[in-house]
Amino acid sequence: MSLSRVGLIGFGTVGAAVYELIETNLWEAFEVTKVAVGNPNKARSAAIGDLLCDANELVRSSEVDVVVEVMGGESPALELIKTALTAGKRVVTANKELIAKHYDALMEFGGDLRYEAAVGAGIPVIQVLKTLARTNRIQSIQGILNGTTNYILSEMEARQAELAPILRESQELGYAEADPTSDIEGFDSMYKIAILGAIASGEQLDLTQIHREGIQEMSLQRVQEAAEHGKRLKLVATWSRESGARVVPQALPMDHPLARVDGVLNAVKIEGDFMPSLTLMGTGAGGRATASAICGDLVASAPSTMSS
Amino acid sequence: MSLSRVGLIGFGTVGAAVYELIETNLWEAFEVTKVAVGNPNKARSAAIGDLLCDANELVRSSEVDVVVEVMGGESPALELIKTALTAGKRVVTANKELIAKHYDALMEFGGDLRYEAAVGAGIPVIQVLKTLARTNRIQSIQGILNGTTNYILSEMEARQAELAPILRESQELGYAEADPTSDIEGFDSMYKIAILGAIASGEQLDLTQIHREGIQEMSLQRVQEAAEHGKRLKLVATWSRESGARVVPQALPMDHPLARVDGVLNAVKIEGDFMPSLTLMGTGAGGRATASAICGDLVASAPSTMSS
Repeated sequence: MSLSRVGLIGFGTVGAAVYELIETNLWEAFEVTKVAVGNPNKARSAAIGDLLCDANELVRSSEVDVVVEVMGGESPALELIKTALTAGKRVVTANKELIAKHYDALMEFGGDLRYEAAVGAGIPVIQVLKTLARTNRIQSIQGILNGTTNYILSEMEARQAELAPILRESQELGYAEADPTSDIEGFDSMYKIAILGAIASGEQLDLTQIHREGIQEMSLQRVQEAAEHGKRLKLVATWSRESGARVVPQALPMDHPLARVDGVLNAVKIEGDFMPSLTLMGTGAGGRATASAICGDLVASAPSTMSS
Repeated sequence: MSLSRVGLIGFGTVGAAVYELIETNLWEAFEVTKVAVGNPNKARSAAIGDLLCDANELVRSSEVDVVVEVMGGESPALELIKTALTAGKRVVTANKELIAKHYDALMEFGGDLRYEAAVGAGIPVIQVLKTLARTNRIQSIQGILNGTTNYILSEMEARQAELAPILRESQELGYAEADPTSDIEGFDSMYKIAILGAIASGEQLDLTQIHREGIQEMSLQRVQEAAEHGKRLKLVATWSRESGARVVPQALPMDHPLARVDGVLNAVKIEGDFMPSLTLMGTGAGGRATASAICGDLVASAPSTMSS
């Protein structure tokens, strides 16, 4: 098997974990040869010091066979990915916003682009949904797709606290971003359900048509009232063939498969016409779980018998 | 895309559902051209009357590109599958006993052999575990892999009844076989965990070394005692890198991810060194769910862009 040379765009929590996973478990098949970072002046692991290069250079480099994009955001990620694909490189990305907003264009662009880590971190929901959608007419998808809001809702109930102090603490612990808008207001969940809906239906969803409510107005009182009725509040992202996608906090009865998905866990339930119900649950955030999905894509894209 | 011609060995609940799924959702890519049944004198659907042929003829037929084996059992399934593979045909099987007992030989035999439906019916645990095992060192696997025993244990608790009457009723309803030994005594779960353990470790497990206890001695009293301690009895199949495989009834605390997997649902929890926890849960029995997995293999094996 020939060694694939990996160019890594982004070296935060996820990028560093991808590097570690390759070094630990995939060193026989992959080697990181280039790393592009947002701010090269920041202290970086000594191991990658020699690999640093500009992202525009990386996606054109003759020393890179496959590009891993974990910088996030729409721009310049989109142009970098297109340039890499045009140069004949395989591309693996965890960028949910990019895939959700440019699904049709990227699918039509051609080339080997994979994005398992864009939804549910280490939960292989993209792979599973694609397989299922080839044989089943997918009827509906329902998921808890954002670990930050799920952690906050879990902690509000467990500790009988309001949202503001839990959010502040989550930010201090690194569970929530300094600017938590994307998570708290449901954008992150919206991008993810839009990707799943696109796979299930075969075409990009119009994000402006997705009803989206976040948990920014969630009160302890509402959490308590749900608990009194034997229910648990969750930020649920839903897609159905009839009604399209939406993101709304819902009080789920305790026997619902998603009701007991607590903390930073993610889960997604899929219903097809032949497979009545399939639920996937697991670590939905964090560097190592996300790296696991990214490296699964790396291996699947490798031109060797390894992916059989 | 060229049409793949399917030869179906077995036309019971699963075989008939495979036929229906192909006719409903996959008619553009697949066509059933031959069907072999155990007893051709039994009344069969008029639609397949013209397709009937002998199984030995089917696996050699020039009108068959891919063989689906859903007859079950070790012999003659093994010889039929080897003959089909030797003839250059792709093979899809749901035969857990066969894969568990001949894993190494079949992997070494070469050719395109797939067996997603052998474990967990419609739950794509084989696909997911293979992907995960390529990037993670799998540490442990824990599952409820037999729908019949799980249904019986669920009903014993829900209806406060002993095993014997529930088993008798299950047989009348078609949930349990006339000879329930394989399910009740844990053979079915043992074959399934042996397959998962083989994928995780890369080599066949010695079935004679697997500790196996079934639920044949299970009493309502034991179910009640577990419930009094806030636990639920399940027939749990386990594999770990250190301790190998075993099948044992266990009293699980209610916050365990497998405790609330009731009725004919199956579930499996996988732990890797990078992906800490991944649980798959879904319909683990029945013709349509099993057909969903078999047809997923059919599509994946098809020599076309459909599988990309």
